[in-house]
Amino acid sequence: MQDAMKLVVVGAGGRMGQTLIRIIDATDGATLHAAVERPGSPLIGRDAGEVAGLGQNGILIGDDPLSAFLHADGVIDFTSPQASTDYAGLAAQARIVHVIGTTGCLPEHDAAIEAAARHARIVKSGNMSLGVNLLSVLVQQAARALDAAGWDIEVLEMHHKHKVDAPSGTALLLGEAAARGRGIDLAENSVRVRDGHTGAREAGSIGFATLRGGSVIGEHSVILAGEGELVTLSHSAGDRSIFARGAVKAALWARDKKPGFYSMLDVLGLSSSI
Amino acid sequence: MQDAMKLVVVGAGGRMGQTLIRIIDATDGATLHAAVERPGSPLIGRDAGEVAGLGQNGILIGDDPLSAFLHADGVIDFTSPQASTDYAGLAAQARIVHVIGTTGCLPEHDAAIEAAARHARIVKSGNMSLGVNLLSVLVQQAARALDAAGWDIEVLEMHHKHKVDAPSGTALLLGEAAARGRGIDLAENSVRVRDGHTGAREAGSIGFATLRGGSVIGEHSVILAGEGELVTLSHSAGDRSIFARGAVKAALWARDKKPGFYSMLDVLGLSSSI
Amino acid sequence: MQDAMKLVVVGAGGRMGQTLIRIIDATDGATLHAAVERPGSPLIGRDAGEVAGLGQNGILIGDDPLSAFLHADGVIDFTSPQASTDYAGLAAQARIVHVIGTTGCLPEHDAAIEAAARHARIVKSGNMSLGVNLLSVLVQQAARALDAAGWDIEVLEMHHKHKVDAPSGTALLLGEAAARGRGIDLAENSVRVRDGHTGAREAGSIGFATLRGGSVIGEHSVILAGEGELVTLSHSAGDRSIFARGAVKAALWARDKKPGFYSMLDVLGLSSSI
Amino acid sequence: MQDAMKLVVVGAGGRMGQTLIRIIDATDGATLHAAVERPGSPLIGRDAGEVAGLGQNGILIGDDPLSAFLHADGVIDFTSPQASTDYAGLAAQARIVHVIGTTGCLPEHDAAIEAAARHARIVKSGNMSLGVNLLSVLVQQAARALDAAGWDIEVLEMHHKHKVDAPSGTALLLGEAAARGRGIDLAENSVRVRDGHTGAREAGSIGFATLRGGSVIGEHSVILAGEGELVTLSHSAGDRSIFARGAVKAALWARDKKPGFYSMLDVLGLSSSI
Repeated sequence: MQDAMKLVVVGAGGRMGQTLIRIIDATDGATLHAAVERPGSPLIGRDAGEVAGLGQNGILIGDDPLSAFLHADGVIDFTSPQASTDYAGLAAQARIVHVIGTTGCLPEHDAAIEAAARHARIVKSGNMSLGVNLLSVLVQQAARALDAAGWDIEVLEMHHKHKVDAPSGTALLLGEAAARGRGIDLAENSVRVRDGHTGAREAGSIGFATLRGGSVIGEHSVILAGEGELVTLSHSAGDRSIFARGAVKAALWARDKKPGFYSMLDVLGLSSSI
Repeated sequence: MQDAMKLVVVGAGGRMGQTLIRIIDATDGATLHAAVERPGSPLIGRDAGEVAGLGQNGILIGDDPLSAFLHADGVIDFTSPQASTDYAGLAAQARIVHVIGTTGCLPEHDAAIEAAARHARIVKSGNMSLGVNLLSVLVQQAARALDAAGWDIEVLEMHHKHKVDAPSGTALLLGEAAARGRGIDLAENSVRVRDGHTGAREAGSIGFATLRGGSVIGEHSVILAGEGELVTLSHSAGDRSIFARGAVKAALWARDKKPGFYSMLDVLGLSSSI
Repeated sequence: MQDAMKLVVVGAGGRMGQTLIRIIDATDGATLHAAVERPGSPLIGRDAGEVAGLGQNGILIGDDPLSAFLHADGVIDFTSPQASTDYAGLAAQARIVHVIGTTGCLPEHDAAIEAAARHARIVKSGNMSLGVNLLSVLVQQAARALDAAGWDIEVLEMHHKHKVDAPSGTALLLGEAAARGRGIDLAENSVRVRDGHTGAREAGSIGFATLRGGSVIGEHSVILAGEGELVTLSHSAGDRSIFARGAVKAALWARDKKPGFYSMLDVLGLSSSI
Repeated sequence: MQDAMKLVVVGAGGRMGQTLIRIIDATDGATLHAAVERPGSPLIGRDAGEVAGLGQNGILIGDDPLSAFLHADGVIDFTSPQASTDYAGLAAQARIVHVIGTTGCLPEHDAAIEAAARHARIVKSGNMSLGVNLLSVLVQQAARALDAAGWDIEVLEMHHKHKVDAPSGTALLLGEAAARGRGIDLAENSVRVRDGHTGAREAGSIGFATLRGGSVIGEHSVILAGEGELVTLSHSAGDRSIFARGAVKAALWARDKKPGFYSMLDVLGLSSSI
């Protein structure tokens, strides 16, 4: 039997880093190898398990990713675009797995990360939840199968009252999947708001609706409404740990893959379905 | 045992009139007494049962409401503001029940109808469905019980692709119920659309979201979102006959009441709950 | 441009036959060629359009399928297993399309129908709704992608109060799709009821739950519940005409196909997805 | 302005006790006065804030409720029936508020607790969530308003895969509310499972359906299904802290009430609605 996969968590002191440390601790086949924070963080030198609320695990948070990656099998990274780009270069040198859940990357970051994927095994996704990634595939297929003349597509999302933008990134990701299934451009076919005299719904458009309230972590539904029937494909997030869970699953999946640039759809075995 | 209540349907040839004739036919304790259309209608003289798809029932559609009301116990009316106002006057003369599901009445129509209620037993509502009326009472109570600092209220509706305005009248009716429960003005506290950078949700506001698609008759949900929990109060209309059904129930209820102006909440025994 | 497809409706006087006649009337590219009832039906000789509530269309209901099929392009059939088997033989002789929505076929019926598919283009399915067929494909994929150790599958259905069996045939069809995705046998892994002390949920099982009430035509949801997230795939039927609509779509699709035995998944272009 | 209410948490080291300490810390108008565990607990002498994950707050966990209650304004208690009975006696002596979320009390416990309510202000409920308590009131009203001949009541619940009994206590509580609204006995009118040939739904019965999967904290829906329409009243728990939050709200509410035995419905101002 293979040894447990040795994983480094970067951004180890942040909320997502702590969650990753707890999920790795709870996952068979994975073990925490090192925990890294940016130089100057007040957490440098603290016990990573204690910071994560697990109790001491003997791994002190450090600030040197190079040595941390040296004997590791993979690194999990929800940090910032520049940091992720730098870590990708180090992961390429170490020829290990690099799972990137960082959002907001610009084209130059993406280009550098993809270049690193010649030597590293990189899995990158804007949403690491298994459920959302699966849903996007199902939405694309449904949108392709049910023709636009007879089926209207609507995307509904609800998030907590603190969220400052609408629709959510995941709602747009699902709208993109629907548009791809239809072979249309999302931006040109979106109806983002409805109020007052709207006129009848335009065939082929993709509508969005947004709810805000309480502490809802994230609810998304894509509704395909035909004459006399509805198909609804939904995802409900009950816990932010699902993103950490998906990232650890991605790392385990990538362990024995060739160097390359992968998405969560590859991890789910669904990339041939789109 | 009381004789079946003798009901007149005005606007008997329209889609709602035909539905009323079928529902009366299927309701114990109610019987169709006469069917009235406006003078000049091509349906005058046709058999009302046949027009409604029931097969002949021997009641010919007429254009004289006065004689139709003469020996009737009640009239059911989903016509137009002016016609309903006129019928209310005749119902007052005949001292019978007048159930009004007509929408779009102006203050002068309402004043005339209320005046007629000194002699007629009038039940009037913008939505005759039992479920929606009940829901409005429950929403008002929930909005009162759950304080605005901790609970956000959202109103979601979905209708078919042909609907030309948003939000629906019933969504606004439910929003009004929520605002009444909170003791606030709906118009001043509504958030009708969200798109782009919205900022965090404003405490005490009532949000609306609208979905359109397919042939959906009418779905409404009021969501009260607190920290860690949601209460959702919903109504789903599967069939337009619910409005006719509610109107016939209202007529039967009003039969032995004193002259006066009633709402569907009185019919449901819920007017003391608001 | 191709001429409209000439369709025969068998069982033309039944509720589904009448619905088919109305749907064909409303569908571009399809036209009613003949309407057939069993010999001895009181409807023989009546105008098919009138019986279907469309007004006269000049096509009299006949009892001779052979002549009805002679110059037709296809036949649509929601009748009985024996009648469908016989019609399949005639469709094979006429080398036309035969869409079969009949349920309850025994292996001998299925064998005869498949034999006829050497010459006829036959589309047969236990549920002709586009939405349910699509959903079954999506459910199978989701069940395959989300592993049984971490994701629990539940099937929920609601139907009207008159339904006498549980779970519905469509709930079982969706359960079969989930089991196929998992590579397990449904019967051996179903949990059909829960009451009292049940113990913890068994990993890998597929649970069913049944609601009954009112006039609900058919609601089905397949829930995949993981740690911290839910994926829900649902279908809602608002109108029985969806089955007729799916059958007409199947006929149009099959028109230019080779003789053979097809399912609704072929019609939807999804048979390669399963 | 009134001083913050001084609250004692008993069972302070348990999961619910820790949550209570965090909620009190976050609630304006409430302050932690003392933290109590049973004698012999290894947590005696530990800092209560630190145990609860808040950081040190200088309040050491003790084992003497008598001194803890002496200068307190109230005590919050999710412990065991015997412990809660004992604490109620002490609360009566101290003439303070006692909020009891303990479940499983036998009649003798309830009798002793009610006796203590001559001097203490006791709030006791089997479910301290505001939402569920509100929902039970709304369900009772809906069940009363919508007559049994035309409206079928179904109760649906979903919980995590570890739950060992069905239906949930809260589902039964909601079923009781519905039965009370109907004026019927729940046990005699329940349909707890459906499988195979069930026959048509019996008018006036209350059906239950149970889903299990993943980590769902608790979802409950009461569906009232009429001809052509559905009313659905739902509660979704996203976080176990809602029970602590409801208890703290109950304590604040009871502060200036007369001694007596109260329920969460009193706290919500809804006891006159039932």
